[in-house]
Amino acid sequence: MDSGQTRPPFSVSQGPLPASRKIHVPGALHRDLRVAMREIALEPSSHEPPLRVYDSSGPYTDAVVAIDVDQGLPALRSPWIGARNDTEISRTDSTWSGVRRDVRRARAGQAVTQMAYARAGIITPEMEYVAIRENLGRQKAVLDMPRDGNSFGAAIPDLVTPEFVRDEIARGRAIIPNNINHPESEPMIIGRNFLVKINANIGNSVVTSSVAEEVEKMVWSIRWGADTVMDLSTGKNIHETREWIIRNAPIPIGTVPIYQALEKVGGVAEDLTWETFRDTLIEQAEQGVDYFTIHAGVRLPYIPLTARRVTGIVSRGGSIIAKWCLAHHQENFLYTRFSEICEIMRAYDVSFSLGDGLRPGSNADANDAAQFAELETLGELTHVAWDQDVQVMIEGPGHVPMHKIKENMDKQLAVCGEAPFYTLGPLVTDIAPGYDHITSGIGAAMIGWFGTAMLCYVTPKEHLGLPDRDDVKTGVITYKIAAHAADLAKGHPAARLRDDALSRARFEFRWRDQFNLSLDPETAERFHDQTLPAEGAKTAHFCSMCGPKFCSMKITQDIREQAAGMNEMSERFRATGSEIYVPAVET
Amino acid sequence: MDSGQTRPPFSVSQGPLPASRKIHVPGALHRDLRVAMREIALEPSSHEPPLRVYDSSGPYTDAVVAIDVDQGLPALRSPWIGARNDTEISRTDSTWSGVRRDVRRARAGQAVTQMAYARAGIITPEMEYVAIRENLGRQKAVLDMPRDGNSFGAAIPDLVTPEFVRDEIARGRAIIPNNINHPESEPMIIGRNFLVKINANIGNSVVTSSVAEEVEKMVWSIRWGADTVMDLSTGKNIHETREWIIRNAPIPIGTVPIYQALEKVGGVAEDLTWETFRDTLIEQAEQGVDYFTIHAGVRLPYIPLTARRVTGIVSRGGSIIAKWCLAHHQENFLYTRFSEICEIMRAYDVSFSLGDGLRPGSNADANDAAQFAELETLGELTHVAWDQDVQVMIEGPGHVPMHKIKENMDKQLAVCGEAPFYTLGPLVTDIAPGYDHITSGIGAAMIGWFGTAMLCYVTPKEHLGLPDRDDVKTGVITYKIAAHAADLAKGHPAARLRDDALSRARFEFRWRDQFNLSLDPETAERFHDQTLPAEGAKTAHFCSMCGPKFCSMKITQDIREQAAGMNEMSERFRATGSEIYVPAVET
Repeated sequence: MDSGQTRPPFSVSQGPLPASRKIHVPGALHRDLRVAMREIALEPSSHEPPLRVYDSSGPYTDAVVAIDVDQGLPALRSPWIGARNDTEISRTDSTWSGVRRDVRRARAGQAVTQMAYARAGIITPEMEYVAIRENLGRQKAVLDMPRDGNSFGAAIPDLVTPEFVRDEIARGRAIIPNNINHPESEPMIIGRNFLVKINANIGNSVVTSSVAEEVEKMVWSIRWGADTVMDLSTGKNIHETREWIIRNAPIPIGTVPIYQALEKVGGVAEDLTWETFRDTLIEQAEQGVDYFTIHAGVRLPYIPLTARRVTGIVSRGGSIIAKWCLAHHQENFLYTRFSEICEIMRAYDVSFSLGDGLRPGSNADANDAAQFAELETLGELTHVAWDQDVQVMIEGPGHVPMHKIKENMDKQLAVCGEAPFYTLGPLVTDIAPGYDHITSGIGAAMIGWFGTAMLCYVTPKEHLGLPDRDDVKTGVITYKIAAHAADLAKGHPAARLRDDALSRARFEFRWRDQFNLSLDPETAERFHDQTLPAEGAKTAHFCSMCGPKFCSMKITQDIREQAAGMNEMSERFRATGSEIYVPAVET
Repeated sequence: MDSGQTRPPFSVSQGPLPASRKIHVPGALHRDLRVAMREIALEPSSHEPPLRVYDSSGPYTDAVVAIDVDQGLPALRSPWIGARNDTEISRTDSTWSGVRRDVRRARAGQAVTQMAYARAGIITPEMEYVAIRENLGRQKAVLDMPRDGNSFGAAIPDLVTPEFVRDEIARGRAIIPNNINHPESEPMIIGRNFLVKINANIGNSVVTSSVAEEVEKMVWSIRWGADTVMDLSTGKNIHETREWIIRNAPIPIGTVPIYQALEKVGGVAEDLTWETFRDTLIEQAEQGVDYFTIHAGVRLPYIPLTARRVTGIVSRGGSIIAKWCLAHHQENFLYTRFSEICEIMRAYDVSFSLGDGLRPGSNADANDAAQFAELETLGELTHVAWDQDVQVMIEGPGHVPMHKIKENMDKQLAVCGEAPFYTLGPLVTDIAPGYDHITSGIGAAMIGWFGTAMLCYVTPKEHLGLPDRDDVKTGVITYKIAAHAADLAKGHPAARLRDDALSRARFEFRWRDQFNLSLDPETAERFHDQTLPAEGAKTAHFCSMCGPKFCSMKITQDIREQAAGMNEMSERFRATGSEIYVPAVET
């Protein structure tokens, strides 16, 4: 466990995005809160104020912060955790970057989870932080804008108050994954009544990748908008890689502890024991992992239901557990020991991500008996966890054709008591390896609209290899698109502000604003410059697509200037009501 | 108009896709028909027959055909057209590639459209061709597979018969765009009860691109699956570029004739006249353009409805017409002359693509009064065209958030008498320039599911520049994904065959089959090889994502082998019916 060795030299991506600066909004209940956001400045000719956008990138994009990966990020939440006076510090053998690290756990019998506090009526700093964070841009003016969307029964408020956050967490409809041993994280919330979030998977395997690469992938993924990151490492240095990631992560980190447990027993699934698994949970909880994927729903009687599937079991964790169950002819120990697992999780405030070990790996297997049997068990376990004040989200598929997506969402809401749904894609067809960010982005946008709280990204390398840095970025941007499209369709207040600002910039040929307001300013500018690289073209009232004569937006602007009476015509026309059919001028 | 000059030297992409060969299925009513399809061979270990897939790539992927772009493609349909005995050949001044070209038009008073034949009860060779083409893989065995999908009221048959095609065309629910002067084309059908099709836009602008590039883009786009191609050229050599494209195109070619008309009047919209436009229609009809986008729905009274829009009018054609209408304070001449336009189109069997000149250019403008007023007029004009036996499809938006997409489809079906809908995207958010193939691919998949018959692709360069060859491929593959996802969700018979074959290959680690069955075998293989390049890895029972120990599919296979009694267990379990909750084994 000694990970104190000198790290290999590496650096991470830093610096603000174009035209952007980090701002900090203070708290009201908790005066010391400084909630990080990003402001994008627009050209003076726009006569518009800077646009505030949600920002998960942490200090890495703050121009005034010096980053030192050997030190890790500042422990933002330490004072809040300490002030609650319900934890104790145990000195462990754990060292990182040459320093011994203190580890916290709950005092005996205490639940130190946000759910426990919420149920006790306490509004924590974490709750106020996420309330302010979610309200981004919801100024008074915006609230006058009519709500436009279909949220399928969600209860999205006009304004997120700290009390609303507390209530959502108390009833289990949202979670704030933040282990008390990961005080470096900036609180964020996952729930159907909040902005849709996205997760990026990173992690090395036995075949490839190094610690430095993985830390950079984490920083890189949050630069482009990942809200949480899962470290799915299965190779060497699994503990050390994770330590480096957590100490430098301003976002929650999730893991699948069974991967490390399996490494400890030499990769032989049959040799897994409850004790090995329990020790792994505690080891990772002490490091600061914020949520654990636990495949407790893969019950022995469900395994035969996968026998006739086209693609059997495609979840790594699910297949490991299935192998253990069959080898021992025993019920899944994650299921039988579930209460004990909850006891560990509540002592650190680790959230459950109840794994869908029997998710379909092909459209052919979608929504089958195995998948839905497991989902019902996850619903049963959700209530067990809630009884112990442990926060829960539920993992979902996978590969699902479009017409079967809503059934997934509806069933999850029904059987899991509205606990947040966290889905991988789903991929709406199986025929496009190399493009599965797209096949899954389609499904992700739809299920996000229907109510999924967090979307787990899929990169172009899915099914083919491990994603590199470019693949991570492509996956993250694709999923930001899906999540934002879902926010728009749900009618999330103010989700439209960025679209409208970018559309105005587009119509007014403010090219720089169009780039800067986009999800990926660098790519937008690079694409534009491939055909019209001159700086003058950035203010040109046309582009290379149509040239000046055929630019519809230029023509429209000409028309507007020319048709002085256009507004009056419009008024007159509107006044005639439905009479849009004036007699045709036949010649 | 003399385009007989020596062409610049260029070549086009040729040769079969991996493991693929061209096959030809004979007709029954018309014995000389040879309907082209692609067969993908699988590894012997699969014990599966080759998979047939729809193939729009024409002779370019036929290993035994020698391509000569100077000669153009063989005139496949000439005998069929000639045999109908309702056209006459007029020698024109038009030459191409150094040869004078004969031009056909209907004998006086004749309608030579597929709609006219269909209504007269005639099953043309074109109709039988598309019937066979659409039936791909719908063998008897497949028909025993239960239908699975939600088609929102479409009437997709188990098997497409020539009579079904005739009936759909007669009632206007489908079109076969094939100008009698484009006999090189292989017939294809566009309609809600057939496979969803995709269109690729190409074309030079005044700023960039050459004839050779555009011909290659056409060939390249059909190689990856484009069903039709629109030539949106607005620059120099507009006539000559089009001639080269049509003579070498096995797929229907669409244009927006107002672009060329505008060039003829020096780019000054106000100077457009009916006569210039009419002459342009005839010129392009004689060349063989298969469908014309005509913005006849942009009526004078609707233009003021765009005054308060965020992005005004974003259709090039729409804005040109709007400018003309306002300058002259007159009704759109495309509207007032619509009957005369129909007379021209019926003499060549050019199909209408009734343009949506007032489509929204931003989410903010979606489904507004201007857009829907125009759509109602397009419905009115559809019936005018049908009265003259002219085939019609209707263009649709654009930029539409997810919750407003279905309203578009439902309204189009209602007001346009189920004429095929042909939509651009729609883009479900405006904030991702550089990734608008994805923002629009999401909307395209959804609207395709809801009933759109053809999806017009959007490339990553949308809003930023003209697509290059790579962008064209990315756009086409993205839209093949959207169209296929729609077919699956509609429950199109046999749409699943390819997904299931690929999933089986995936589960059995037949890597070569997985690549070859995918939409883009080259990319899939390249991505795989980035981490495991050795040929041995193509047969390895794991990949670089998880490595051998963590490969869920390998573990599942081990389980299956190990659990000899698994099938019996499964049977027993199924026999217990809903009793999936056996008592928990609590320890």
